[in-house]
Amino acid sequence: MKASRFFIGTLKEAPADAEIVSHQLMLRAGMIRRVAGGIYDYLPIGLRSVRKVERIVREEMERAGAIEILMPGVQPAELWQESGRWEQYGPELLRLRDRHQRDFVLGPTHEEVVTDIARREIKSYRQLPVNLFQIQTKFRDEIRPRFGVMRGREFIMKDAYSFDRDVAGLQRSYEAMYEAYTRIFTRLGLDFRAVAADNGSIGGSGSHEFHVIADTGEDAIVYCPDSDYAANIEAAEALAPVALRDAGTQPLTRVPTPGRAKCEAVAEQLGIGLEHTIKSIVLAVDAPEEQGGEAQIVLLLLRGDHSLNEIKASKVAGLSGWRFASEAEIVDHFGTPPGYLGPIGTRRPVRVIADRTVAAMSDFVCGANEVDYHLNGVNWERDLPEAEVADLRNVVEGDPSPDGKGTLSLCRGIEVGHVFQLGTKYSEAMSATYLDETGKPQPMQMGCYGIGVTRILGAAIEQNYDARGMIWPESIAPFEVVICPMGWDRSEAVREQAGALYDALRAAGVDVILDDRGERPGVMFADWELIGVPHRLVVGDRGLKEGKIEYQGRRDEQASLFDVGVAADEVIARIRAALNV
Amino acid sequence: MKASRFFIGTLKEAPADAEIVSHQLMLRAGMIRRVAGGIYDYLPIGLRSVRKVERIVREEMERAGAIEILMPGVQPAELWQESGRWEQYGPELLRLRDRHQRDFVLGPTHEEVVTDIARREIKSYRQLPVNLFQIQTKFRDEIRPRFGVMRGREFIMKDAYSFDRDVAGLQRSYEAMYEAYTRIFTRLGLDFRAVAADNGSIGGSGSHEFHVIADTGEDAIVYCPDSDYAANIEAAEALAPVALRDAGTQPLTRVPTPGRAKCEAVAEQLGIGLEHTIKSIVLAVDAPEEQGGEAQIVLLLLRGDHSLNEIKASKVAGLSGWRFASEAEIVDHFGTPPGYLGPIGTRRPVRVIADRTVAAMSDFVCGANEVDYHLNGVNWERDLPEAEVADLRNVVEGDPSPDGKGTLSLCRGIEVGHVFQLGTKYSEAMSATYLDETGKPQPMQMGCYGIGVTRILGAAIEQNYDARGMIWPESIAPFEVVICPMGWDRSEAVREQAGALYDALRAAGVDVILDDRGERPGVMFADWELIGVPHRLVVGDRGLKEGKIEYQGRRDEQASLFDVGVAADEVIARIRAALNV
Repeated sequence: MKASRFFIGTLKEAPADAEIVSHQLMLRAGMIRRVAGGIYDYLPIGLRSVRKVERIVREEMERAGAIEILMPGVQPAELWQESGRWEQYGPELLRLRDRHQRDFVLGPTHEEVVTDIARREIKSYRQLPVNLFQIQTKFRDEIRPRFGVMRGREFIMKDAYSFDRDVAGLQRSYEAMYEAYTRIFTRLGLDFRAVAADNGSIGGSGSHEFHVIADTGEDAIVYCPDSDYAANIEAAEALAPVALRDAGTQPLTRVPTPGRAKCEAVAEQLGIGLEHTIKSIVLAVDAPEEQGGEAQIVLLLLRGDHSLNEIKASKVAGLSGWRFASEAEIVDHFGTPPGYLGPIGTRRPVRVIADRTVAAMSDFVCGANEVDYHLNGVNWERDLPEAEVADLRNVVEGDPSPDGKGTLSLCRGIEVGHVFQLGTKYSEAMSATYLDETGKPQPMQMGCYGIGVTRILGAAIEQNYDARGMIWPESIAPFEVVICPMGWDRSEAVREQAGALYDALRAAGVDVILDDRGERPGVMFADWELIGVPHRLVVGDRGLKEGKIEYQGRRDEQASLFDVGVAADEVIARIRAALNV
Repeated sequence: MKASRFFIGTLKEAPADAEIVSHQLMLRAGMIRRVAGGIYDYLPIGLRSVRKVERIVREEMERAGAIEILMPGVQPAELWQESGRWEQYGPELLRLRDRHQRDFVLGPTHEEVVTDIARREIKSYRQLPVNLFQIQTKFRDEIRPRFGVMRGREFIMKDAYSFDRDVAGLQRSYEAMYEAYTRIFTRLGLDFRAVAADNGSIGGSGSHEFHVIADTGEDAIVYCPDSDYAANIEAAEALAPVALRDAGTQPLTRVPTPGRAKCEAVAEQLGIGLEHTIKSIVLAVDAPEEQGGEAQIVLLLLRGDHSLNEIKASKVAGLSGWRFASEAEIVDHFGTPPGYLGPIGTRRPVRVIADRTVAAMSDFVCGANEVDYHLNGVNWERDLPEAEVADLRNVVEGDPSPDGKGTLSLCRGIEVGHVFQLGTKYSEAMSATYLDETGKPQPMQMGCYGIGVTRILGAAIEQNYDARGMIWPESIAPFEVVICPMGWDRSEAVREQAGALYDALRAAGVDVILDDRGERPGVMFADWELIGVPHRLVVGDRGLKEGKIEYQGRRDEQASLFDVGVAADEVIARIRAALNV
């Protein structure tokens, strides 16, 4: 590609509404342009990287035996009514009507459509397993689209759906996808981690997220440096302390703590560590509508320095669908507004659930159910009955790893892939059955597997940039090499040598761009560093006199000099090494 | 690809609502499945052909210097309001609202979005020319989607938009696209014709359609077998007869023609040819709203055996926006209802426009403006003043070619591509200007260029099928070769030889499928003939004993026998010859 025939629109400044680095840099480099909130044009430079991501994803999906199809963006409401999601899905599902006033949705995902394909096309166990994938444009009407391609409304996704005869088959399909995703993100040249994720009601290891590691990531990831344990924060189990509970030594006392409604303030006043305090969180679980009646009030106890894991709370028996209790409900049950609540002496009986860590504490501090008072030296059994115990909290750095092999670390990640065992959720709702060997209809076991194609661009940038711009991995760089000729307009020798290099690199299959725009070196260098081309060759009269061409990798602090005769080969060798081919 | 791992869903019968061959065959072969009216899934076999079309289109667009981008499907209403099409576009434009009640459209085309890109990115004459293209999913809310992919609602299009400094530049861009399209349809292996099309107000040779020739085509195409003249019926000029008008010899007579309101009936009664009769067509042109007043009534005269070309009528000065006159208007001006109208003795004055052919007639028959009467032996000048003359009719087979090089023929075509000089329509409406050499803002000259990617599949089938199924050109066949092993499950020798052939063909880059499903020969052959794979190799124990493999091209009436050792090479040679590589 020659730059003069390309469409380069770099900007000095990013628009003010671009909040994060990847969004700013993609705009500045002319990869994307905003059309409406969360809706973008992909300009040539951006689209080149999108297509490279797509190609790697497609190759690895096919290698894993998945077969490509293409489903429509506009989907009839009837399918969503069948699955129940027409009602359940929130306003992210863009509903629309055609000219005949029939209801449709703009597909945010394709479980319904693909299940409809499966039930029509698959009749017999002999046709299973099948894994169908597509690379297609999705729409989710985010309430606040932001961060450029990271949380857009219209975006490109690879989604795959597997159909199996039984759970063992589903697990094989799932593992094949897990491995394909591992190959994909490895080939993309990204530092990533697969983490166990919550998968709702299915249980087991039925869901993993693939995260690109980046300090700016929205998600907290938990991992064990000494083993392969990794999970997102929602799914990471906090083990019960192994040490037995100390016997209490302090007497129970009622302490005035005026104006100190937070654990931190109480600990400060008492001169103790936060780890000796307990916080009280009050939930309500509404009675089913048909039964009516008042909500059940539940008190969760967490250590003062721990935070509630809302997903874990949902999984405690009887707490599915919980909400935080209202102040009126709290006053009604505890006789006091929030700030001084505790498990002892509530006005009405409440269900008390202690986090595993709390259950192992002794001589602790909690609210006295009276404004401006706490209890100190509280001990289980002696001062209050043993509570129900559950894993309720987010793990913290240094917690023991659930696999028993060390302690946990935390980092930030950007979710770019998700593999999920759906089981029979859709196949049962939509009657997608096959006939087994005995001729009996059985629901198909389904898995679904997504990769955010356009989001990967943003994640790759969040992981790889510096003050001058983006730094692309070779596999998805808009161009692998740029040739910058110094004095294009004046030097015949430079033009000739730059052209020869360009031809040699192209002949070797290298994705090279020749900057024949005749721009000043400063402009050229700034543009290509911003765009993040990983390899740069500078051809100038001064170097040519010595038979040299200047080379600089995008991460290199200094340029090197190559002999003219070997410059192309040197670059090719570097690219091949990086791509591992 | 091995058939056992593929997703093949052939059907014995097509659904009853599939009206045309291509729709029936695509459904039967499992290329597409209906999701809603005009909305389809592309199953693996169909998608393979779509991707092959896309690849050829992309390669030739890039070769012509166009640069790929990707614009969104969901477009903000503001852009359409700026261009004026928010109001002008009919209900095919699907309008929708997001969760914040902002208006959007589902893009049926992208002139607005691309003009918005151009005005933001292109500042200077130095950045021009630019040609931006995309291959993207469009939505048009057809009132009656039908014919499968031929007139769908959601479909894939390649659309390109060129931006130039001046008309000469636009013409160069246009010609480059014309040539690229010619290469594309040639490479696709289709019998096609580029025809001049009407381009509204721009005039000149500013619009061409590319048609795949097929008897079932919806459009009439006019061409000259002795030259390269070709146009669609709307645009084909009907020349004035070269012979001078005969002097009239008959007296003007008033003939009773009771109940004979049609030219055919009158000619029959009088025992003359239809070519001696004239039909009267009455139009009305409404006065501009601000002026009010009654519509102007215009009488068009066409020879009895000719048909009105409505586009040509629109181009006559003063007739833009015409409509057919109402019966009341006709009675008011002619004193008689339709059926016996003519230019002589109208009740009120009307503007009379004669088709070129009519202007050269003498001794003709027309209505007498009295029920049940016609005039015979009518002659210009003698019986009525010379009328305005214009080209008003559709050409017919045998008309002289407008280029003076022979006579015209007609055939049927399916429009698959369109190149169009837009001029400054959008750049002026949306202020897409660049600064010229003198620093003055100038509107960009635009062209737009579309190819119906998914429609090409339907058109290719309408042109290439037989009673057994589709017959694909090699370039876009789902597979180039199928290997059918006889007795896959029982013969080791067959499995081995089929596998060796498969490997040899794949190694040569041939797109081959091995039918390892273990189906009976009849089922295999029927499936692959229906799917239309152009080359078939049959491996069986009987042939192998003689060292032979059976080959049959999809259009061959009989199979041939190849020696085992050369079978792969023979097929490769045939494919390369067909692809012209």
